[in-house]
Amino acid sequence: MTQQDLYNQIQLKKSFLCLGLDPDIEKMPEQFVNSSKEPLFDFCKAIVDEIQHLCVAVKINTAFFEAYGETGFASLAKLIHYIKSHYPALFTIADAKRGDIGNTSLRYAKAFFEAMPFDSITIAPYMGKDSIEPFLTYKDKHAILLALTSNNGAADFQFKKNAERRPLFKQVISTSLKYDNADRLMYVVGATKADYLKEIRNIIPNAFLLIPGVGAQGGSLKDVFENGSNEQIGLLVNSSRGILYASKGEDYIEAAYKAAVSLQSQMQKLLT
Amino acid sequence: MTQQDLYNQIQLKKSFLCLGLDPDIEKMPEQFVNSSKEPLFDFCKAIVDEIQHLCVAVKINTAFFEAYGETGFASLAKLIHYIKSHYPALFTIADAKRGDIGNTSLRYAKAFFEAMPFDSITIAPYMGKDSIEPFLTYKDKHAILLALTSNNGAADFQFKKNAERRPLFKQVISTSLKYDNADRLMYVVGATKADYLKEIRNIIPNAFLLIPGVGAQGGSLKDVFENGSNEQIGLLVNSSRGILYASKGEDYIEAAYKAAVSLQSQMQKLLT
Repeated sequence: MTQQDLYNQIQLKKSFLCLGLDPDIEKMPEQFVNSSKEPLFDFCKAIVDEIQHLCVAVKINTAFFEAYGETGFASLAKLIHYIKSHYPALFTIADAKRGDIGNTSLRYAKAFFEAMPFDSITIAPYMGKDSIEPFLTYKDKHAILLALTSNNGAADFQFKKNAERRPLFKQVISTSLKYDNADRLMYVVGATKADYLKEIRNIIPNAFLLIPGVGAQGGSLKDVFENGSNEQIGLLVNSSRGILYASKGEDYIEAAYKAAVSLQSQMQKLLT
Repeated sequence: MTQQDLYNQIQLKKSFLCLGLDPDIEKMPEQFVNSSKEPLFDFCKAIVDEIQHLCVAVKINTAFFEAYGETGFASLAKLIHYIKSHYPALFTIADAKRGDIGNTSLRYAKAFFEAMPFDSITIAPYMGKDSIEPFLTYKDKHAILLALTSNNGAADFQFKKNAERRPLFKQVISTSLKYDNADRLMYVVGATKADYLKEIRNIIPNAFLLIPGVGAQGGSLKDVFENGSNEQIGLLVNSSRGILYASKGEDYIEAAYKAAVSLQSQMQKLLT
């Protein structure tokens, strides 16, 4: 899926919402869990079926599946195949934060781009060029590089400045632009740091940014849009818990729908 | 498994060898692959059964399993359960390079410490404190933090200096010492950078170091031992390809055995 395809979907759906799937059995309605043989898959499927027309992307958090070992991983594979075959226009993200030496990153790329048909995967920058480039060798697939994250721990290293007073997250972004097929890169930028969005846009005017942290983590959608959007909008704003667990009752689907409609309608206003 | 247990095994086996399992079907003997229904598991099992008395640790590279999707992940789970039940004295490492915001790292910890019975997991530092501490809440389990890696890409960020001319990898190590349960941390330090081992030892005199890059990637075992060992030896020197693919013929088991014996006997000399 190309950036242009993604932009077309944003225009069509009047939304730049990314639905985050972090399925947590303890937060699901009890009755649902008791009646389902495969709650990770069934819960996500129910939410996606209901929300898919309101979002342009779906981000699957791999940890929430791996936590259940091989049965969890089987549900992950089943879910991405289901989404890709039923809703091919959705941009799919494996939120997996992978990254290793070249020959190993190549295997992770095979895992998420071949064994499973994801359009993109989040990756960690610490090991540099040869840990990232294997993910960029696939036409119409994307690697979404961690730049500035929304958690407290981001302060430990991402804001550390070099001798020219340039924080690490900017060094990461600038350096990544020199990698082969850098035009296939997107970036994770935490919305709790909206002040930095404008500065980041100056370095990467054309890249799509995946923005976690709106809502539960305190970021403002309007600030994000004003500071981060570009000609193709260039934003995928993620909401996970705010949609998935809008209600723990039997009305969880309706509550999720309402939460997604609320976000989509805010986005529609910003887009027009 | 405690560091003391690990040290006891090193003394007993006169070895600080870590067997790296990166099962690559294209590098396995053709006849073996054709006759096996589950080549990832069967190949690793055959090697481990043959080598287990020569090494103190086994490092399983998760990417080589994930590359085959859910069937690969099932083989990974089967393999760690096999190793843990048959060779409980082996220190097992999930070479998975995970790391995410706190509630997600918690799921990865559950995946590798509960759903699968690994003793340790390699983790990436970029997201800081709350991405690392969930892995340190398990008694007798360890997180092995990427500090200085052996690949070319390490130059991109790990050597970047701050205003005090201190490279990022040293900032990572120093900062990690302030985390809760930091005594459960170990560190990845590439052997191709033996010059830095002594400096790293000054910062973390007591921690175990996982050393990739001896052999195929050019590091010298003697240099590593002289610069990196401590009172508990404190080193796990990994060999993957040098053992697994010592021969592509039908003699691959004998060739792997010979390669491991060669490393173990060099280690025995250094230890006495």
